[in-house]
Amino acid sequence: MSRYKCIISYDGSGFCGYQIQPKDRTVQGELEKALRRIHKQQHILVEGSGRTDAGVHAYGQVIHFDSPLDVPVDKWPTVLNTTLPDDILVKSAELVEDDFHARHKAVGKEYRYRVYTSPERDPFKRFYSHHYPYKLDLQAIEKALGYFLGTHDFTSFCSAKTTVTSKIRTLHEISFTQEKDELVFKFVGNGFLYNMVRIMMGTILEVGRGRKKPEQIPIIIEEKNRKLAGKTAGPEGLYLWKVFYE
Amino acid sequence: MSRYKCIISYDGSGFCGYQIQPKDRTVQGELEKALRRIHKQQHILVEGSGRTDAGVHAYGQVIHFDSPLDVPVDKWPTVLNTTLPDDILVKSAELVEDDFHARHKAVGKEYRYRVYTSPERDPFKRFYSHHYPYKLDLQAIEKALGYFLGTHDFTSFCSAKTTVTSKIRTLHEISFTQEKDELVFKFVGNGFLYNMVRIMMGTILEVGRGRKKPEQIPIIIEEKNRKLAGKTAGPEGLYLWKVFYE
Repeated sequence: MSRYKCIISYDGSGFCGYQIQPKDRTVQGELEKALRRIHKQQHILVEGSGRTDAGVHAYGQVIHFDSPLDVPVDKWPTVLNTTLPDDILVKSAELVEDDFHARHKAVGKEYRYRVYTSPERDPFKRFYSHHYPYKLDLQAIEKALGYFLGTHDFTSFCSAKTTVTSKIRTLHEISFTQEKDELVFKFVGNGFLYNMVRIMMGTILEVGRGRKKPEQIPIIIEEKNRKLAGKTAGPEGLYLWKVFYE
Repeated sequence: MSRYKCIISYDGSGFCGYQIQPKDRTVQGELEKALRRIHKQQHILVEGSGRTDAGVHAYGQVIHFDSPLDVPVDKWPTVLNTTLPDDILVKSAELVEDDFHARHKAVGKEYRYRVYTSPERDPFKRFYSHHYPYKLDLQAIEKALGYFLGTHDFTSFCSAKTTVTSKIRTLHEISFTQEKDELVFKFVGNGFLYNMVRIMMGTILEVGRGRKKPEQIPIIIEEKNRKLAGKTAGPEGLYLWKVFYE
């Protein structure tokens, strides 16, 4: 039995999220279905670095699985890709120690969030970038981003459904760049709570539109109250970009 | 009754083509459904500059329709866009003479075709760019393109199903540019036969891969035999870019 770590990419628009579900089409479900076919109906559990919601994309999600098959490690991407549907791609595979775990061993993640602000929606972007048709004050946004940096209790920026014990997380980097008619935000941290990036984004966009002041961000953080933050921005703009390990 | 000309854009991946069909989802079908809603169940015929096949996109398709409603011309895009599904966008509307006709008055069209050649398929491009994972000889392609220019009988480059009387068309421009990891081909002509761009593209790609020589193109044209040309390249790479009128 060997353990393999794979970096995968997927277009989230055709999935009801990452995590397997009895009826709906999910990324984990399709991965396990492909592995079952490759292993002659033997069930192979796939562990991901974390879930992504319906409509959320991944450019560099990490998974691991154990296999008794004698497939050379560099052949695994091809073997999987010829079996997987074409909205999931295995980009690389690596033989890892038996104690590697895609979720438990992750020490950080990078997410990106794409926004476009043209007055009209773009039919070609509807699944891939968030439409926010307002003039944005980029200086105010820049200022708001700074307040999120560092270690905070992010209770105000996670879904009320979140059940984890500690809501303290550290953000190492938050920035944005302009790519043609889109703004691309980058979030790097040691971990992210449920909906955290999307709620931060919803709040940042309200700052950009002038509905909140950048100076309100530290107060919202302090209050630990989800109701004070902005709306949860749509899943279509969100990409799990990279997962970091020691 | 006033006649309106609209420029529309659509993501073809969710449509069984442009032309209305009894059961399947089509662009014309969605446009007429939206207009019927706006006109309190009165049927409004929509005429397009031409059909596009299932999976083929449009950046600048042109349509026209007649309406008895007193909607200011600059309001038509908004009125339509709030009723249309979000994979179709009306980009502009213009009041035209009663004898304007989107198809009959068109004097030329521009198509674009996107290709990417990376060894691995890209989940995010699967509906928007044609995957051709081979090293391409761009000089050979450049040379091949030249042979298509001008006025020819394009019988070898149209579907055998084509029923039009004359298969003579004039191509004014054929060129390509590199955009990041994609090649974007541009075709401008006075008209295009059924599947013509896709069959030219299939042939051009075979030249790029070394399976045909550029010098074979004039012979293939001369022979007027569909079997001599290359495969019909996939619909996902094709965009109806612009329609020209006098």
